[in-house]
Amino acid sequence: MITLFGNLLSGNVHKVQMILRRRGIPFRRVDISQMRGEPRRPEFLKVNPIGKVPAVLLADGDILSESGAMLFYFAPGTGLWPEDLRSQAEVLRWMFFEQYSHEPTLAVLRYLKRYAEDPQLYADQIRVLEPKGLHALRVMETRLASTDWIAGGKHCTIADYALYPYTRTAKESGFDLGDFPALDPWLKRVEAQPGFIPVLVDGAEETLSFADYFCANV
Amino acid sequence: MITLFGNLLSGNVHKVQMILRRRGIPFRRVDISQMRGEPRRPEFLKVNPIGKVPAVLLADGDILSESGAMLFYFAPGTGLWPEDLRSQAEVLRWMFFEQYSHEPTLAVLRYLKRYAEDPQLYADQIRVLEPKGLHALRVMETRLASTDWIAGGKHCTIADYALYPYTRTAKESGFDLGDFPALDPWLKRVEAQPGFIPVLVDGAEETLSFADYFCANV
Repeated sequence: MITLFGNLLSGNVHKVQMILRRRGIPFRRVDISQMRGEPRRPEFLKVNPIGKVPAVLLADGDILSESGAMLFYFAPGTGLWPEDLRSQAEVLRWMFFEQYSHEPTLAVLRYLKRYAEDPQLYADQIRVLEPKGLHALRVMETRLASTDWIAGGKHCTIADYALYPYTRTAKESGFDLGDFPALDPWLKRVEAQPGFIPVLVDGAEETLSFADYFCANV
Repeated sequence: MITLFGNLLSGNVHKVQMILRRRGIPFRRVDISQMRGEPRRPEFLKVNPIGKVPAVLLADGDILSESGAMLFYFAPGTGLWPEDLRSQAEVLRWMFFEQYSHEPTLAVLRYLKRYAEDPQLYADQIRVLEPKGLHALRVMETRLASTDWIAGGKHCTIADYALYPYTRTAKESGFDLGDFPALDPWLKRVEAQPGFIPVLVDGAEETLSFADYFCANV
């Protein structure tokens, strides 16, 4: 069975749950927590030298990481990856936008405002990130005001999956989705996709702790 | 003719020059400067609502942005995009690593240390970014110590093109490539690729200023 490394608070990990559930691929999950610093522990760096979650251990013993690469790898058969080159490039365009402009603002704001022990300590960082997060949501709003799916075609793609989690949790990042009228209907369209799994829900057949997994596998 | 929007100081823009030169596709360039704030000017936002360079105006009047999406779009015929799904996912893995972990540290450090008017103003930001930049280079070093190309196959891919510019300029970001013995031979392998163009060199047939282009096209 495939093993997914990562915790449920991570929207990047959630993307992998979304595509595995869409495909109907069963997986077990090893709970690797950023808050406990586990992605940079030596045991995990042997799994993913990049030192980040999510990562997947494929059934053949090979490791793949980066949520965008995993969405791509598991897309065949789902219809979430278009067939022509120009449409494929457009999907990647929005996936790179997500990893460069959307996730680093919305995910970090969510962490600092919702999960950090003392958000006041991060007031300067929050002040820098807020206009960037606002810009990212405005870019999505402008786009989705004229098209059902972010990559512009007639069908949901892995770019919609990539942008879903941290848009769904934008309120925790300090944004009011009421200010972006095109986003809520789009979120609901993604949620109506086959095999959809909501954020924070564990889709794994079995879940192990860091200690359980690495003690048993050393 | 294709129009490339962006300035020569940007490694992301350089990636697009690299792939267009590799393909032998002639292009003109409109010089859009981040330092002058031009990517967020209304004229440019009509071209790329994401508000970033590079962007390309294709011959059919369509716009594509995000350097990674452009590397993918122009890869056919170059051999820089492998044929099997697992290898393709591995290429994307390293391209997402570049946009999430490599470029936001190395490119920003380079800007703050080399081009900002008073780097002292950014001492705190530099202190946060330096260990992250070091980590990104160490990840590359570990990988390239055991394989000629970053995605691990027998051939150069667009992932090598994506990682080239800001690794080549790592000294300007404050890192000594002498500390990473696998990186210099890898940089030279990329530089030996057909149609290679060095950083800061203008590969365009014709170059227009922001004013020239947008006054003529309004």
